[in-house]
Amino acid sequence: MSVVEVPAGSPFGPENLPYGVFSVAGGRRRVGVRLGDSVIDLAVLLEDEVFAAPSLNPFLTQGPERWAQVRERITALVARDVPGPAVRPVRDVTLHLPFEVADYVDFYASEHHASNLGRLFRPDAEPLMPNWKHLPVGYHGRAGTVVVSGTEIVRPCGQRKAPDEAAPSFGPSRRLDIEAELGFVVGVGSELGGRVGVDEFARHVFGAVLVNDWSARDIQAWEYVPLGPHLGKSFATSVSPWVVPLAALEAARVPLPGQDPQPLEYLRGGEDWGLDVEFVVEWNGEEVSRPPYREMYWSPAQMLAHMTVNGASARTGDLFASGTISGPGRRQRGAFIELTWGGREPVVVKGEERTFLLDGDEVTLSATAPGPDGSRIGFGEVTGRITPAR
Amino acid sequence: MSVVEVPAGSPFGPENLPYGVFSVAGGRRRVGVRLGDSVIDLAVLLEDEVFAAPSLNPFLTQGPERWAQVRERITALVARDVPGPAVRPVRDVTLHLPFEVADYVDFYASEHHASNLGRLFRPDAEPLMPNWKHLPVGYHGRAGTVVVSGTEIVRPCGQRKAPDEAAPSFGPSRRLDIEAELGFVVGVGSELGGRVGVDEFARHVFGAVLVNDWSARDIQAWEYVPLGPHLGKSFATSVSPWVVPLAALEAARVPLPGQDPQPLEYLRGGEDWGLDVEFVVEWNGEEVSRPPYREMYWSPAQMLAHMTVNGASARTGDLFASGTISGPGRRQRGAFIELTWGGREPVVVKGEERTFLLDGDEVTLSATAPGPDGSRIGFGEVTGRITPAR
Repeated sequence: MSVVEVPAGSPFGPENLPYGVFSVAGGRRRVGVRLGDSVIDLAVLLEDEVFAAPSLNPFLTQGPERWAQVRERITALVARDVPGPAVRPVRDVTLHLPFEVADYVDFYASEHHASNLGRLFRPDAEPLMPNWKHLPVGYHGRAGTVVVSGTEIVRPCGQRKAPDEAAPSFGPSRRLDIEAELGFVVGVGSELGGRVGVDEFARHVFGAVLVNDWSARDIQAWEYVPLGPHLGKSFATSVSPWVVPLAALEAARVPLPGQDPQPLEYLRGGEDWGLDVEFVVEWNGEEVSRPPYREMYWSPAQMLAHMTVNGASARTGDLFASGTISGPGRRQRGAFIELTWGGREPVVVKGEERTFLLDGDEVTLSATAPGPDGSRIGFGEVTGRITPAR
Repeated sequence: MSVVEVPAGSPFGPENLPYGVFSVAGGRRRVGVRLGDSVIDLAVLLEDEVFAAPSLNPFLTQGPERWAQVRERITALVARDVPGPAVRPVRDVTLHLPFEVADYVDFYASEHHASNLGRLFRPDAEPLMPNWKHLPVGYHGRAGTVVVSGTEIVRPCGQRKAPDEAAPSFGPSRRLDIEAELGFVVGVGSELGGRVGVDEFARHVFGAVLVNDWSARDIQAWEYVPLGPHLGKSFATSVSPWVVPLAALEAARVPLPGQDPQPLEYLRGGEDWGLDVEFVVEWNGEEVSRPPYREMYWSPAQMLAHMTVNGASARTGDLFASGTISGPGRRQRGAFIELTWGGREPVVVKGEERTFLLDGDEVTLSATAPGPDGSRIGFGEVTGRITPAR
């Protein structure tokens, strides 16, 4: 038995306890929680086979009462001694995709982002579409290409056509971009034909991850009318390896900035699920932006209520993401197309003027949120490096 | 041992042998093939546990050489006597979703359909978008709400706003529609970062199903800009219980009607994968349309090549559908919004003028294709009845 040491100020203190899936050399994948610089093997700590699974899904299906019990029990056990075999230094483990993704829906919930993209993609029209303030606009993405942080991102090829070109050409994307987002993981699904009320969010959603929704802007601009983004997004979406449970985000909950006009009744009420999560975007190790999640127009509770109001069922492992997080300031923008204003206003990274991603570039998103008693809750990071088109 | 009787002219003769998942009262789901009015239990016939699974997925992953061997063996065995316990009358079994759906992509591959919808949704603009003849336009749908034929369809609720209304209102869809489509089931996946060539279609795709992509046109019209359809489609997509293997469709293969301009190189060449599949749409038992699949502009081999050309991986169980099948004639249109021209030209069904779906309506799609020696290959049917909004 040993006490797990937690460095002072660690964003992975005992008030956080995010869940992930890890393996050690030659071993099988299993579920752990992060504490300080250690991973606690839950199958060993709690002697429960549900954590010997290669994904969080079996635990997610067990529901919020069970999630609360397990969290309480882990909190109590790590405050005392933990059996030695349950503790692994995080540097010694490989982290995997923490859950099997069922459906992946990506929203568009930042007013600043939607307005910026409207100005860039449709310069002669109103930046926000007429529906934008009435419903959280979203669409389905590709679940099968959601990958864990650290996975290399192969530059996608596809059709691109600039406005001044007569016909499209085929080749590697020339406008490869990021989207800094927060993603929500459904634990308990819902029935086909039923719906999840805006006040039932925490009965269904288990926790949150960081998402980088890699985007090829040239492919997207050519393909997206009228059925939405497809190949411009489907090549890869990276998520952080740690799922921060909603229970760790109590101190981060804030009211939304305000909705005008008032949305329809099914999107009204419930508790505050604005979240004061502060993102940092690093480009080749240099900070270029700090997108503030608290500025988002639509809450994740509204997203889930909207997504199911037509009777669509939710399933364990569904991932729905916020869409790019952008604040009002330039250095609060969560996509490079906004940060560099369509590539016309480069930013300086490591002394060089940069617009979109070059081969070899690495982007890392990280985020923290207020925890109890002045602590910080860390989401860890989601990182990816661009490799040349094949 | 007994000979399985096949009624003369059955679309489920020994040249077809589509795969499905069935159960008998109190029993587990297992894989069978249909022959005449019987289901042959493959775990019994072939003494192979892969067919004792509750979905086709484990068999699908085994690949095209194995699919061919199994088909050859079934063909040989059913030509002789089949053990009695392997044979069930189809009326005595329950049919289930035949495969676990990984990702679901819906294309838009009929020029007639895309032109009709362009005229209806955007009357003041060119009906086809500039990208339409350069790439098979498609988008991701909701995999978790793909249901088997016979599942009741609850009328979806959502936001609708007619052009003459100032604000959206919430309520049951008033323009509930169908889309008659052919869907393709991926057996063997592909690597992330790689691609599937247009000539590799039959190495990855196992077979085809009928698809009814139920669509709430009022919800869709309000929500779909700029990220595409979401709640207007996500409440349910019905598929037929029988997956017709590509091997049964050899005699149905035809050249495409013709592509002009010639598409980019990655979409060119390969074998003919136009398919002469004739659909019948029945509304409350009355035939209202016969959409011809041979009229489709893009082939399914082009769809798969396009879907993966950006490095997106495919997985076992991926479903990609053609989009609505519409021919040039009015009675060849595969969606009611086209058949009734936006509701302005009703059709007569059982003596009543009808436009969109009413509660209690039932729609059944069926289809057949040419088989060897003048036989017909049946896809069976996909049916669904509308129940009132909850």
